Formats: sequence, structure tokens, C-alpha cells
Amino acid sequence: MSIWFTERQSDGYEVRWLVKRLLHQERTAYQQLTVVELAEFGRALLLDDIVQTTVGDEYIYHEMIVHTPLFVHPAPRRVLVIGGGDGGAVREALRHPTVDAVDLVEIDERVVAAARVWLPEIAGSLDDRRVRLHYTDGFRFVAETDQTWDAVIVDASDPIGPAVGLFSREFHQQVRQRLAPEGVICTQSGSPFFNRELLRQVAGTVAELYPQSGTCLACIPTYPSGLWSFTVGSLRGDPSQPRRRPDFTTRYYSSDYHRSSFTLPPFITHLTSPTR
Amino acid sequence: MSIWFTERQSDGYEVRWLVKRLLHQERTAYQQLTVVELAEFGRALLLDDIVQTTVGDEYIYHEMIVHTPLFVHPAPRRVLVIGGGDGGAVREALRHPTVDAVDLVEIDERVVAAARVWLPEIAGSLDDRRVRLHYTDGFRFVAETDQTWDAVIVDASDPIGPAVGLFSREFHQQVRQRLAPEGVICTQSGSPFFNRELLRQVAGTVAELYPQSGTCLACIPTYPSGLWSFTVGSLRGDPSQPRRRPDFTTRYYSSDYHRSSFTLPPFITHLTSPTR
Repeated sequence: MSIWFTERQSDGYEVRWLVKRLLHQERTAYQQLTVVELAEFGRALLLDDIVQTTVGDEYIYHEMIVHTPLFVHPAPRRVLVIGGGDGGAVREALRHPTVDAVDLVEIDERVVAAARVWLPEIAGSLDDRRVRLHYTDGFRFVAETDQTWDAVIVDASDPIGPAVGLFSREFHQQVRQRLAPEGVICTQSGSPFFNRELLRQVAGTVAELYPQSGTCLACIPTYPSGLWSFTVGSLRGDPSQPRRRPDFTTRYYSSDYHRSSFTLPPFITHLTSPTR
Repeated sequence: MSIWFTERQSDGYEVRWLVKRLLHQERTAYQQLTVVELAEFGRALLLDDIVQTTVGDEYIYHEMIVHTPLFVHPAPRRVLVIGGGDGGAVREALRHPTVDAVDLVEIDERVVAAARVWLPEIAGSLDDRRVRLHYTDGFRFVAETDQTWDAVIVDASDPIGPAVGLFSREFHQQVRQRLAPEGVICTQSGSPFFNRELLRQVAGTVAELYPQSGTCLACIPTYPSGLWSFTVGSLRGDPSQPRRRPDFTTRYYSSDYHRSSFTLPPFITHLTSPTR
């Protein structure tokens, strides 16, 4: 018998994955959590029946959301990751030799637990001595802390369910207060095809709060429409210009790709360049 | 009742589209031809149950496959389009004011007939006085003609069915003979995720046959994996450097995007840069 998992990406568009094995399923305090092995793209973490990450293409999302902001900073030491309980963003942040502290704020402890068991190549760095885990709401964590970070990475799931507050203006105002001088933030801002209003709103908020900002693109096959956006805000450097080059191997990110990824097709430019 | 059309994109991955209306269906001499109206992306042309083009995102494919090579040429006058019976590539070629002759070679006359009726915004330019239609096999047409063109656009469907020959080395050798000085060719070369061997082969063939060549990328949501590649060969100019700027409105292509689209992520670079 063939088992297929169907992901509804819009009212009129669905993706179907052949499931080789159902590895784990539970109802957490926040969401439905599932780990499956897909015939295409391998093991995958699902939240509320939406694919969050797969071992086959996770490198694209995690390299882009981490290296884009970190290479804009001259020497990032302290990194805050909000969301991202799978550990992929933490893993990439730790590859920067200047980084000596990574705080991960994940609301759902069960996501981290499942990733540790089923997605060790993504979650493996969570045991690094430089990492501190905080199981709490990202919005509350940022509002209550008095610490600062060189880079904040908002690795939120879709803007429905527990992550909805992480796309709000109020949240980004709080994050802005927690940045050290030369600080930089990066947030995923959805598909320019399926989440146009979200992208417009996030790009507008970040442009208002930071002296320099920009949106870049990556192609992520397991995400709706394939095209995904990341929005970067910076207190000093131009987000489209990396100041340093990786001294480690990457599969999607490169300094040249960093620069090119901020060149937007005209149909997206008008979304992300609000008239002031 | 909801009617869904399922497109199998690989053995373990399918896309499902909600169909608002079935507009046309026939078995031609070459393939199954269907026109539907999809809830997402609008009217669509299908060949052998694979989406070829939709009114919602066709501009991405057609702008990239035409403007990328044409803006590398200093003043293209004669353009040959092989495949592309929907007329989208012809429409974009005619927007260049220097172009005074476009030859379209489509093996299946019924594709053109259906596009004229059901996709007039794509096929409308086929009645332009500068256009000549040739209903024959592209491989044979190129082998038998003694004419030359400034740009040849290989707008083939998938490398299965009638289009298989249009990806071969023999075909590209014939095309090379039909180029005027400073001539340029562009062919679609598939998804870097789902058609890796095809991309490697096409990029290698074009690199061998032309003094300058390169592969660029675009994100096309209705194509498998979203990420799509185009390979350009040129007798003179660097394919990644446009020599002119559009004096007409575009939605996806721009001169800046042209340059950026040739920056490939590392995982693709090793496919398209064969060691010689």
C-alpha cells in the first residue's frame, strides 16, 4: 500500500508526498508534530500538517537565514535564534568562528526533542557548549530580557498558529531594542507568490525600524511556490553586501550568491519598496 | 463536486490543482492536449498531463528564455523559436524593436490552434506580420534550412515525448551552424533538483559548442521544484552581461536580474562547470 501525505498550500493547490515511513506523531501543547520519511527529500518535520524542514533541502533555508545576516556583521559573537527548534539555524551559526554564544528560544520543547531523535544531522549542534536553550514564547522572551545580541534570527513557522506574533510590528520593535551596535536581524518573510501581504508587511516594518534593510530570495523546493523570501535589517552595513567570506563549505550560500539574492524581479520590488 | 488535476513530478512527489473548468481536451497526432482553468494561476495548457504554461506565471518563463539571450545580442533582427507553440516566446521577442522576423517551429499544429482560442494573451502575437509559422519537427527544420538567425530559442517541453531530440548534442550542433555572427542561443535546461543529469548534459554541450556560455536560474512556481534553469551560448558577448536595457515594461526580467540570475548556488555550480 502506498501512503501519501497531502499538504494544502492554498485553496486550489496541494502537494502530495509519498511517505516511506511514519516515524513519530504526537499532539504537543501547541501543535500536531509529525516526523515522516518522504520518498523525495527524506526525513521531514511537520507541524500542523505543514512541512517545516526536510533533510534533503534544509540546507538552503538554514544557510540563507543565518549566513546572510551573519556575514553582514563584521564579527558576530552573540546570536539569538527565535523559533527554529529543529536546530538547523543554530548549527549554521556555530560555523562562524567568532560566535561564542547562541541562544535558542523555542516555544515547543517537543519540537527540539523530536528533532534530536529523528533529525540528528539538523539538531546535532544543540548540545554544543556555546548553546543555551530557552523553552518559552519568543515574544515574551525578547520583551523581558535585558541582554543584547549581535544577530537575531527569526526562524518562525507559518504566520498561523503559535508563530503569529513573530511577524508583528510590536515584536520587531522589541527585537530592535535587543541589538548591539552594528547588530543585524533576519526573518523569513514567506513566499512572494502565496504570502504577498505578509512580505509587504514584514519588509515595511523592517524598513521602518532599521537604517538599512533589504529582502533577498532563495529557491526552496519543499516550500509553497518554491520561491522564498528573507528580510534583513541592519544598524550599520548594507544587508546585500557581505563583509566577510565563509571559511567553511556551503551548498547554497556563497558571497556572490548573497549579493545576487537581493536583486528582486520587478513584480516583487514594488511589494518591498514602500513609498515613504 | 471539486475536480482536481494531479501532476506527477517524480515518483514520490505530486502536485494537485483545483480545476474550475475543463476548457478543451483532444488527442493530437503527438500528445494529449488539455486546456483547463485552474483556481490558482488561471488558464493552463497541459501536454501529456504536464502543465506547460499558465496565464498566472507564464511571464517568468517567457521573459527569461527570450530577454536573456536577446539582450546579450547588440541588435537582434531575426529570431528562431523552436517549440513554444503557445506563442509566449514569440510575443516577448516581438517586443524588441530591432526584431523584424520571427520563425516559430512547432511540431504540433493543434497546440497553436488551442492556444489561439484559449490563451489569447499568450498566443495573440502569432498573427503579427513579422511571424512565420512552420509546423514541422524542430530537429528536421534546423538540419534542412540554409537560413541564419541572430538568436535561437529552444522552448522545448519536457525531454520525454516529441521534444526529446531538442536536448541532444546533434541538434545543438545543427543550431550552431544556423547562427549569424554574434548569434546567441537559449534553451531551457530543466530543474536543478529534478533534472540534474539533463542540466549537466545541456550545459556541457553548450559549453563545448560556444566560446561563451552560462546557465541562469528563475523561480517558476508551476514547474517542478520551482527552480528552473536556462542555458545560454553566445558567439561573442558574455551571456551574463546584457548589452542593452528593455525600453518596455517587464514583470520578472530586468538588467540587474539578468546579471544576478547567472550567480549559481554552489550545489549547482559543480553541475554546470565541467572540468575540461
